Amino acid sequence: MKKIYVEELNDYIDKEITFQGFVDTIRDKKWVQFVILRDSSGKVQLTIEKSEEQNKEMVELISNLTRESVIKVVGKVVKNEAVKLGGMEIIPSSIEVLSEAQELPFDFNNLEGVNLDTRLDYRFLDIRNDKNFLIRLVESKMLEGMREYLYKNKYKEIHTPKLIGAASESGSEVFEVKYFDRKAYLAQSPQFYKQMAIASGLDKVFEVAPAFRAENSNTNRHATEFTSLDIEFAYIDSYEDVMDMEEDLLIAGLTKVKEAYGKEIEELFGKEVIIPKKPFPRMKLEDLLNALNKEYGFELPKEDVGDMNAEAEKLTYKYAMEHFNSEFMFITDYAKTKRPFYHLRKNGIPQGYDLIWRGTEITSGSQREHRYNELVSNAKEKGLGEDVKFYLEFFKYGMPPHGGFAIGVDRLTMLLLGVPSVKETQFIFRGPNRLAP
Amino acid sequence: MKKIYVEELNDYIDKEITFQGFVDTIRDKKWVQFVILRDSSGKVQLTIEKSEEQNKEMVELISNLTRESVIKVVGKVVKNEAVKLGGMEIIPSSIEVLSEAQELPFDFNNLEGVNLDTRLDYRFLDIRNDKNFLIRLVESKMLEGMREYLYKNKYKEIHTPKLIGAASESGSEVFEVKYFDRKAYLAQSPQFYKQMAIASGLDKVFEVAPAFRAENSNTNRHATEFTSLDIEFAYIDSYEDVMDMEEDLLIAGLTKVKEAYGKEIEELFGKEVIIPKKPFPRMKLEDLLNALNKEYGFELPKEDVGDMNAEAEKLTYKYAMEHFNSEFMFITDYAKTKRPFYHLRKNGIPQGYDLIWRGTEITSGSQREHRYNELVSNAKEKGLGEDVKFYLEFFKYGMPPHGGFAIGVDRLTMLLLGVPSVKETQFIFRGPNRLAP
Repeated sequence: MKKIYVEELNDYIDKEITFQGFVDTIRDKKWVQFVILRDSSGKVQLTIEKSEEQNKEMVELISNLTRESVIKVVGKVVKNEAVKLGGMEIIPSSIEVLSEAQELPFDFNNLEGVNLDTRLDYRFLDIRNDKNFLIRLVESKMLEGMREYLYKNKYKEIHTPKLIGAASESGSEVFEVKYFDRKAYLAQSPQFYKQMAIASGLDKVFEVAPAFRAENSNTNRHATEFTSLDIEFAYIDSYEDVMDMEEDLLIAGLTKVKEAYGKEIEELFGKEVIIPKKPFPRMKLEDLLNALNKEYGFELPKEDVGDMNAEAEKLTYKYAMEHFNSEFMFITDYAKTKRPFYHLRKNGIPQGYDLIWRGTEITSGSQREHRYNELVSNAKEKGLGEDVKFYLEFFKYGMPPHGGFAIGVDRLTMLLLGVPSVKETQFIFRGPNRLAP
Repeated sequence: MKKIYVEELNDYIDKEITFQGFVDTIRDKKWVQFVILRDSSGKVQLTIEKSEEQNKEMVELISNLTRESVIKVVGKVVKNEAVKLGGMEIIPSSIEVLSEAQELPFDFNNLEGVNLDTRLDYRFLDIRNDKNFLIRLVESKMLEGMREYLYKNKYKEIHTPKLIGAASESGSEVFEVKYFDRKAYLAQSPQFYKQMAIASGLDKVFEVAPAFRAENSNTNRHATEFTSLDIEFAYIDSYEDVMDMEEDLLIAGLTKVKEAYGKEIEELFGKEVIIPKKPFPRMKLEDLLNALNKEYGFELPKEDVGDMNAEAEKLTYKYAMEHFNSEFMFITDYAKTKRPFYHLRKNGIPQGYDLIWRGTEITSGSQREHRYNELVSNAKEKGLGEDVKFYLEFFKYGMPPHGGFAIGVDRLTMLLLGVPSVKETQFIFRGPNRLAP
C-alpha cells in the first residue's frame, strides 16, 4: 500500500485512510487527546474524544504512548477550521504502535545548551529538528537543480575512483589504505580523472562524490571527508568561460531551492535566498587587495602574498556588497606559486579564479594546461615526479583546451543558510576526532 | 565563446563558424584532403581542395597532421548530398593545431587482439572507441532516468560517509585506512546510514556513491571499488512494496536509455533495449529450484542450500524467458542463514529478494527489521557485537517500517549492453591487481 503523506491529505477529505508517522507531540486534556503526527512532508493532528465509548482502547494506548514512537492510524480525514495545522484533523478508529520510542537523550526541538558532540552522536535525532531537517531538504534540492542544469546542457556523469595508486596532487594530507599487499591512497579530488574524461572525448562531465583530506585541523569549514561537485568541460577559450558556466550553475541551484523552500528558509533561518545576477563582479587579486587596503586599511601578511586569507575573504564580501551589491565575487590573477601546476598560465599568470560567497571561498576554478610540454615543465617546477607520470600521459594523444572547478556542497549549504559549521550541514560529519556514527 | 557541437551544425548551414574537435581520420588524396573531426556528439567532414591557392598553408598543415590531434577550424558549413556523414561538410579558411597527438600505442578503432590490460592502462584512448564511448553515454543516461524518477517521487539525495569507525556489516573484506593515530575502514555499502536517514525522518532517500570491497577475487562482475545506487524508503507494508518500486525505477532508467540511444545500442552492440512489463515474475527460491531441477536437471550443491549460485542464476534466466517471457525474475524466501541480520523475518523467513536479469544477480533488497528487540536478537544470532552497537541505537527512538535495495550501476550497464565484464563498464576499473590509472 502506498503511504499517504501529510501534503496529500487535502485529496482525502471525508475519506477513511491509513496514516503512518512519528508522534511529534501529545496533549492529553481532560476530555480530549490531541496527537500531532509528523512525516517528511509535514504534520497533522489526530483528535480522540475521551467520552466516546468506542475510543476507550485508543485513549488507553495514547495515555501510554511515548513521543517519537511511530504509529499507524486508520481514520477519517475531516475539515476543521479550528485546527491551526492545515485546517484539518484525522479522527481515528484504530491505532497501532509500530515502533515504541524510549526516552529521548535530549529534546531536539530545543537544541540550545545541547553539546554539539552529543547532537552529532545522536545525529538521527538531531536531524528531526525542524531546521536541521530543512537543511537536508535544501541540500538535496540544490543538487537536483544543478543536475537539471547539467543534464540539460549535456554534461555526462562520471564516477572516478577514490582508491588511487599514488599520493597524487600534493602528496601530503592523503589517507593511506592497506590494499592487499601494497598501499593505496584516498583521492583528495577527482581532478586528474575528470581531466582524463576530457582526454577520453567526453567533452562535458560532472561528478558528485566524496573527497578525502587527511588534514588534522578543526575549522568550521573543513572535514576529512566531504561531498564535492566537480565540473570539467572542453573547448573553452579562456577561464572566463568557466566562470560564466559556474554562474549559470549556481543560479540554477539557488533558483530551485528558492522555489521549493524559499519561504521555509526565511521562516526558520531568517535568510532570503538571493538569486544572483550575471555577471558576478570579477577583480584581479592585486586590485582587490589594494582596494581593501584603501577602504578598510587591510594589509595581507607576508606569507600570504599572491593569495588570499580568511580576513581578506570576509572583507571581500563587504566590498562586493558595497560596490557591486553582489554577494558573490570572482578573484583572478593569483600568484603561480600559490596555484597548482595544472593551471594554464598566460605571461606567467595562472588562468584561474576563486569564488567568494558571503565571505568564504566556495570554489576554485581555472583553465587547465592542455599542452603536454608546458604541463611537464609546470610539474617539474613544483617538484612533482613519479606521482603525476600517469596523469601526464593523458596529454600525449590529443587533449582539447578545457577547464573546470569544484564546489564543496556542504560548504555551499552552510553559507546559504547561515549555519555556523559544515558539521551541521554534512549528513554525517567526519573530522580528525569524529568517525561516528 | 560557446563550442558548437556536431549535432548542432544543421543550424549553421552556409554560416562561417569556429569548430573544434579531435582529428578522427585523414584521407590525403591527389586533389583533395578529407579530415573527419569528432566531438562527443558526432563526426563531421572537413574538405580542403588542394588546387586552391589560399589553401596552401592548410594543405601543408594537414599533410603533417597526426590522427587524434585536436584542431580548431574556422570555416563555412555547407550542404553536400554526396557526403555520407550528415550530408554536409565544413570548408575551412584556417586551421590551428591545439594539441598534437603522438603516435598511438594501439588503434582504438580495432581492439581485437589488444590486451585488456593495455586497454585499461590507456583507458582514455580505449574510451575513444565508438562502443566504449557509447557505454559511458548509456551509463550516464540510465542514472539520469532513474534520478528523474526519484526526484519526481520525492526521494531525497543523501551522501553518507565512506570512512567508518568500525568494520561494520560483515567484518571481513573491508579495507583498512590509517586515520591519524587510529584505524578507520572503507564502507562496503551505505546500508546502515541509509537506514539512519529513515530514523532521521527523511522517509525516502537515495545515494549514488562508491562502495568498497576488499575481495581478492577476479570475476567479470566484481571490483574492489564500484558505483552503488542505494535506495531506502519508509512506511512499507512488506517487501512487495520494495519490489514494486524497483520495477518502476528500472523501467524509468531503461526507457530513458532506449529513447536516447536505443538505435545506437542496436547498431553497435546488436542488443535491443527491452522495457520490461510490470510485474516482473516472482518465485520462491524452493519452487524455483524445484522447477530448475525438473526442467533442466539442475541440482544445487550442498554448501549453497538456501541460496543461489551462478549456474542457478543462468538457468533462472532461461526459465524466466521460457515461462514468463521475461528477462527479469525476483527470487524470494532465501534461508535466514544466507541473509544479513537486518532483514525482517516472518515465521523465520527473511522478507527479501534477489533480482536476476539476463542470468546475473543485479540487486538484493528486503524489508528491514525495524523493531529494536528483534534486531538485537538477529544480530546476536549472527555473532555481531560492538561493531553494530551504534547502528542498533537508530532503532531505539522510533523507527518506521522500511525497506530498500542496492543496484551495482556498472553491472547493470554490463548486462544491458552484453559487455563481458565490469572492467569495460566502469569508467576506471579497480581490482586487486589494478590501481591505475
